[in-house]
Amino acid sequence: MTGTKKIAWADEIALPRGFRASGVAAGLKKDSRKDMALIVSDRPAAVAATFTTNQVQAATVKLCRARLACRTGRGVIVNSGNANACTGAQGLKDAERMAQLTGELAGIPPEQVFVSSTGRIGVQLPMDKIEAGIRAAVPALSAEGGTDASLAIMTTDTRPKRVTARLDVDGKPVILSALAKGSGMIEPNMATMLAYILTDAAVEAGALQSCLSAAVEQSFNRITVDGDRSTNDTVLFFANGAAGNRPLDAAHPDWKTFEHAVRELTLKLALKMVEDGEGVSKVVTVRVLGAKTAQDAEWAARSVANSLLVKTSWAGEYPNWGRVMDALGYSRARVEEDKVDITYDQLPACRGGLYAGTTIDDLKRIVRQKAFTLTIHLNLGAGETVVYTCNCTEEYVRINM
Amino acid sequence: MTGTKKIAWADEIALPRGFRASGVAAGLKKDSRKDMALIVSDRPAAVAATFTTNQVQAATVKLCRARLACRTGRGVIVNSGNANACTGAQGLKDAERMAQLTGELAGIPPEQVFVSSTGRIGVQLPMDKIEAGIRAAVPALSAEGGTDASLAIMTTDTRPKRVTARLDVDGKPVILSALAKGSGMIEPNMATMLAYILTDAAVEAGALQSCLSAAVEQSFNRITVDGDRSTNDTVLFFANGAAGNRPLDAAHPDWKTFEHAVRELTLKLALKMVEDGEGVSKVVTVRVLGAKTAQDAEWAARSVANSLLVKTSWAGEYPNWGRVMDALGYSRARVEEDKVDITYDQLPACRGGLYAGTTIDDLKRIVRQKAFTLTIHLNLGAGETVVYTCNCTEEYVRINM
Repeated sequence: MTGTKKIAWADEIALPRGFRASGVAAGLKKDSRKDMALIVSDRPAAVAATFTTNQVQAATVKLCRARLACRTGRGVIVNSGNANACTGAQGLKDAERMAQLTGELAGIPPEQVFVSSTGRIGVQLPMDKIEAGIRAAVPALSAEGGTDASLAIMTTDTRPKRVTARLDVDGKPVILSALAKGSGMIEPNMATMLAYILTDAAVEAGALQSCLSAAVEQSFNRITVDGDRSTNDTVLFFANGAAGNRPLDAAHPDWKTFEHAVRELTLKLALKMVEDGEGVSKVVTVRVLGAKTAQDAEWAARSVANSLLVKTSWAGEYPNWGRVMDALGYSRARVEEDKVDITYDQLPACRGGLYAGTTIDDLKRIVRQKAFTLTIHLNLGAGETVVYTCNCTEEYVRINM
Repeated sequence: MTGTKKIAWADEIALPRGFRASGVAAGLKKDSRKDMALIVSDRPAAVAATFTTNQVQAATVKLCRARLACRTGRGVIVNSGNANACTGAQGLKDAERMAQLTGELAGIPPEQVFVSSTGRIGVQLPMDKIEAGIRAAVPALSAEGGTDASLAIMTTDTRPKRVTARLDVDGKPVILSALAKGSGMIEPNMATMLAYILTDAAVEAGALQSCLSAAVEQSFNRITVDGDRSTNDTVLFFANGAAGNRPLDAAHPDWKTFEHAVRELTLKLALKMVEDGEGVSKVVTVRVLGAKTAQDAEWAARSVANSLLVKTSWAGEYPNWGRVMDALGYSRARVEEDKVDITYDQLPACRGGLYAGTTIDDLKRIVRQKAFTLTIHLNLGAGETVVYTCNCTEEYVRINM
C-alpha cells in the first residue's frame, strides 16, 4: 500500500484552499430543510467526472457531459427535491439557466458552472424557487460552508457523507475533501448518487480523469442497494491547484500517493452510501474468487448481491447459502454446482456445492453482525471481484412505497 | 381464437380417465399439513416436460431430465418441505429411491416414475419420513385424489392452483386437468414452481413436447414475482390416451383446439401463481411494444417487471412512470428517451419521454386496482412482448426473512 502512511483521514468536510461552499433552503423539499448547495473555486480548476450509464439521463447530466469537454470548471450548483429528469427541452433550458444565474451572481464564467439535481423524476423544476435559492446561496458562500452543502444535497439519507484526506504533494500540504449523497429517495421516487471531490492539488486534467475513473470503478461502481441505476448519478472532481505543487500526473513522484488517496476516499464514500442505504442495517461484502473470467466474477457477484431472496434472508439474519447457490446458478456466469465453496467470514457454509457442516448457529453469529463478508469460490479460473451490498428490509419497502 | 368455443373451463381438479392421485402428510412440514403427492396413470402415458434453466438443479430435476428421454411415464411422486437441491450424490440416490419404492408399491416400472421436490435447499431428504409417506400415498390413490394432491404440493401458497378444461377430440370428450404450486417459500428458503398437467387424450410424444414448450414460453416463462429463478422448477405433462382418440399431432384436425386449450390452461395457472405470489396484492401486465427487436422487448419488459423501485411504487399505489423510465434506461434494450410512451390501462402517463399531463389522481385510480396493464411503447421497431408481474410489499420481505 504505497503512500498510505502519508495520508490522514477524517469523516468531515474541510474545504481545500480556494474553495467556498454554501447550502440553503429554497423550498424544494416539503419541510424547511436545506435543498440547494453551491461549491465554487476561486480559480479555474481541472475537472474530471463520471456519470450514470443509464440511457435515460437527467438534463443536468447532459449539461455536465457537455461542460466536461473543456476539462475546466469553477464550481457546481446542486438542488435536491427534483431530479430534472424526463423533462425534455425545458429541463435542459432550466439546467442552463441554473448555471447562467450562478455564474452571473458569483462572477464566474457560466459555461464553467456544473449543475446537478436529485429527487423526483418527470416534474419540471420550479424555477422561481430555484432562482431564489441561487440568489441566497451565492452570498452565503464561505470557506466553512462545506457542511451546509453536504446537508443540502441529502434526500432520504439519514446522515451526510463526508470524507477528508490530508497528504503531502511536493512537500506541500494538500487536502482532498468530498461530500456525497447516497441511495436515498425523495417523494415516491428514485434514488440518486451524487459525489463531489475537491482538492487544492494541481493535477493535469487527463490524469485527474483517469485517476477518478479507476477509483470510481473500484468504489461507487461496486456498491448496490437495490440494483436500480439512477438517471442522475454524477461524480465531479475539481482540482484547483491552490496548493502550489507541480501538476500531478502519472510521472510525478507523489502520483501513487495521490491516486491511492482518491481510491480510498471514493471507497469510504461508497461504503457510507451502502451503510445508509434505505432501510439497510447490514453491509455485506460479496467476494467472488475462482471465476472462469473477470466478467464471470462480475456476473456472479452482482447476481448474488442483487438477489431479493438473498438480501431478505440477511434481513432475517439467516445464513441462507442455498439462496446464494440459486442466485449463482441463474447468473450469466459459468457455474459448476459441485465446485462451489461458500464461506461467511471465515466459516465454511458450503463445500463443493454441499452443506459444509458448520452449525447453523455458528453461521448465524456471522450474519447477525452489522457487517460481514460472503466469499464465493467458483473454482473454475482466476476471475475475481468484490461488490458491496446490503440486506433488504421491510423498511426499504416502506420508504419506497 | 380457433376452437375456444369447444372448451369448458373450471377452477378445479377433475382427473382424466385412467389417472388416480393422492396427497398425504408425511411429517416433512412442521405442522401436520399434507406434504406428499402421488399421481399415477393406469397405462403408459406420453410425457413432455420443461425444467428450470438454473445451472444449479435439484436432484429431482436431474432425474426427471434423464427419465424424459424415453418420453413415457406412469406417474410422479412429489414431496414439499425439502427441495432435494444442493444435495449431491446422496440427493440423486434418494430421488431414485423415491421412484423405486413408488414403482414397487404401485406396481409400475420405477424408471417410468418421475419425482419432484420443493422446499428447503441444501438439506438431505429425511428418507424415513419420505418412505413412510410413499407407503401411505400408494394405497390412498383414487380417481378423486387430485384435490388432496393439489394441497400436498403447496408450500407458502395461500391456496391451491387447479384448472380443468373439457373439450372434444375426434368427437370424444377429453379432459385436461392441472395442479400447480406457485412462488411460495418453506422455512427461510427459496421459491419453486411445480405444475402437473394430465390428459386422457392420446397425443404423439413429440407433438406433446412442442405443444408444452410453446405454451410454457407464453405462460410460466412470462411471470415474475421476485426475479429469482428456482433450482426446482418443473412442468410435467402426461397424456395417457384413455379417451381413445386418434393420437393428436400437428396434422390432426383437432390439434389447434388442443394446443389452444393447453396454452390457455398454462396461462391460467401462471396467473394464479402471480396472484398468489408472496405478499402480492396486485397483478400487473407489462406489455412492451415497438422495441427494436423481440429480444429488446424482452429485456425492457423484464427490467421493468423486476425493478424493485417500480414494484414497491405499485405497493404504494403510486403511478410512478419515472421509475419505469429509469428501469427502461438501464435495461439492455435500446431506448431513446424522447420516443417512449407509457400508459396505465388506457391513460397516458408519459408521451415522448415527458409527463403526458393526465392527473396523478386519475392515474392513481388505475394503480389502485387489483390488476392493471402497463403498456410501454418504445417506438423503435416491431419487437413486442408481455410479462406478468406483481407489486412488492413489506409482506414479501417478512415472508422471506
